[in-house]
Amino acid sequence: MSSGRVLIIGGGPAGIEAARGLADLGVPVTIVESRDRLGGMPIAAHYATLTPSLEDAEQAMARMLAPLLGNPAVELRLGAAVSGFAGAAGDFELSVARNGSQESVRAGAIIVATGFQHFDPGRETQMYGYYEFDDVITLPESEKMLKEHSFVRPSDGRLPERVAFIQCVGSRDRQIGNEFCSKVCCGVASKQAIEIRQQLPEAKVFIFYIDMRMYGYWENRIYWPAQEQYKVNYIRGIVAEVLKKGDRLVIRGEDTTLGRPMEIAVDVVVLSVGMEPSQGTREMARLLGLRQNKYGYIETEGVPLATVLTSVEGVFAAGACTGPADLEDSVSMGGAAALKAAALVRKKALAAGATG
Amino acid sequence: MSSGRVLIIGGGPAGIEAARGLADLGVPVTIVESRDRLGGMPIAAHYATLTPSLEDAEQAMARMLAPLLGNPAVELRLGAAVSGFAGAAGDFELSVARNGSQESVRAGAIIVATGFQHFDPGRETQMYGYYEFDDVITLPESEKMLKEHSFVRPSDGRLPERVAFIQCVGSRDRQIGNEFCSKVCCGVASKQAIEIRQQLPEAKVFIFYIDMRMYGYWENRIYWPAQEQYKVNYIRGIVAEVLKKGDRLVIRGEDTTLGRPMEIAVDVVVLSVGMEPSQGTREMARLLGLRQNKYGYIETEGVPLATVLTSVEGVFAAGACTGPADLEDSVSMGGAAALKAAALVRKKALAAGATG
Repeated sequence: MSSGRVLIIGGGPAGIEAARGLADLGVPVTIVESRDRLGGMPIAAHYATLTPSLEDAEQAMARMLAPLLGNPAVELRLGAAVSGFAGAAGDFELSVARNGSQESVRAGAIIVATGFQHFDPGRETQMYGYYEFDDVITLPESEKMLKEHSFVRPSDGRLPERVAFIQCVGSRDRQIGNEFCSKVCCGVASKQAIEIRQQLPEAKVFIFYIDMRMYGYWENRIYWPAQEQYKVNYIRGIVAEVLKKGDRLVIRGEDTTLGRPMEIAVDVVVLSVGMEPSQGTREMARLLGLRQNKYGYIETEGVPLATVLTSVEGVFAAGACTGPADLEDSVSMGGAAALKAAALVRKKALAAGATG
Repeated sequence: MSSGRVLIIGGGPAGIEAARGLADLGVPVTIVESRDRLGGMPIAAHYATLTPSLEDAEQAMARMLAPLLGNPAVELRLGAAVSGFAGAAGDFELSVARNGSQESVRAGAIIVATGFQHFDPGRETQMYGYYEFDDVITLPESEKMLKEHSFVRPSDGRLPERVAFIQCVGSRDRQIGNEFCSKVCCGVASKQAIEIRQQLPEAKVFIFYIDMRMYGYWENRIYWPAQEQYKVNYIRGIVAEVLKKGDRLVIRGEDTTLGRPMEIAVDVVVLSVGMEPSQGTREMARLLGLRQNKYGYIETEGVPLATVLTSVEGVFAAGACTGPADLEDSVSMGGAAALKAAALVRKKALAAGATG
């Protein structure tokens, strides 16, 4: 017997897009989300705005979620986790744990959209003083202050005069084990730099980078305005260390364009932390038996001419659980995975002689 | 009355993925392709291998195309063009011109996947001597030589000892009018640099760049091996001009990392030309009344939380007709657009009281 239902694990942008698409096709879906709210990282991490649109994140996500709410084709399991897995493509049987109880869900196909977590800059590198100095923060911490329109020096609540972003923290780094580029941090830092300049027009903003990876329209939509309209100072350089000097921080390193040492005093240092697979991504890969790459992300098969296939038939993956992904990647992959899942349950239903 | 058929304009990676997905769902499709062969740019421009997999392009595309051939749900119109358009979402009526005759096709939804063309480096800039010197070639011309395992100096057929790539030709350039980044050229040039070193182990290869945009896994899959295993020389610099000196070319400019003028003699200069909307993209946007951005690409609505919606209901867009896109973008968008198209024709059929 086959099941016409699709189980979606993860209720962020990729999972939401998949669920919307399947519901529109008349395919019943169950979304299992570990948090108490849908929306994924843009909601959980209090994003102020989205990159590159600079649209309010809550509003944008609410608009994306609207078609799911009260939709009879969509079952929501919030604060829940998949805890058991059996069966095969066309007829999976999953256990879903919630509030201490277990529920069984049958599904013909599974879409894993369990996303990423932000790299913890204190975990393996102390060079930037993240756990030492209050005024050294991360990209999501900066984003949250921007959302609240309260971008301050955390140490004393004063408005900063100078803010510096340090790129590639936890990315492009063999010592940490993350050789990949996290793809979105250049764009997000530049977007935040614009917003700091909008909220604090007197502040100076610096971005220390290796390569500014503003691909596609991020170049003309964010990078050019950041430089020309918002006067963000981009400095190609290697930051050796962050020190405390008086009540300020000092960034020491080398300006590789000018070819000389630099020392810049700032009020707030924002570490542009990269992506790593979330705990949920690692757990679901293990539970479902999906091949993972050396970084712990779910390996997709057939790249670049396939993007959502995993090593297990009937299980598809979308978004940042497969590797660094921007919102557009996640949304496109969510749709692409939903299409494959819908086709699979249809094929299995036809093979079983069942009616749609 | 509504039509359950989806018309796909363009038979490259995005269009092929859309057609495969729709056929798997049981939705009949018609593919209209202006060339005489499916496969899009990887086939038409004689790609040696795909980025980042380095898989043989012909083999990879053949595998992708296989499910379409002889598929009763798929009608192919090769060497054809859409020449007329009427109706509305759910019931479009299109004229398809082929071999001097016109055919009428009814479709409930349309997917535009008409792709890009390579920037012509002689069109508006003469600074790199593309039309002047035989040994100045473009990225697709280099790709074609690599495919034939005959990477030579075009002027005399001799094997080159030194090859240089110049990045961002026709991209990130306000004078030319293309402020966007073409996204793939850093990866493709680095991939070709690896292949030149594989085919001509004695050759030295240089890449002159502003920022190496090796996002996501391109960093660890291509950029690191290019540097460490294949000893490709990456030089951050501004190339002022390409001159002829004896039977060699000389690249003059500034090494911005060392902060000094540079002059490097090479045998072949490869211009890493960027993407522009194809003629077909411009024509279809006009014919279907789709909003275009200032570069002529089809504008997608709702970015970043929607990626395949156009300004016209029932018309979706996928791949490089919407802007610079890599193969993964194109394939994911093809799937995402197919899902939306399938949902639309289903909704219209239900509304019309028709049976599936």
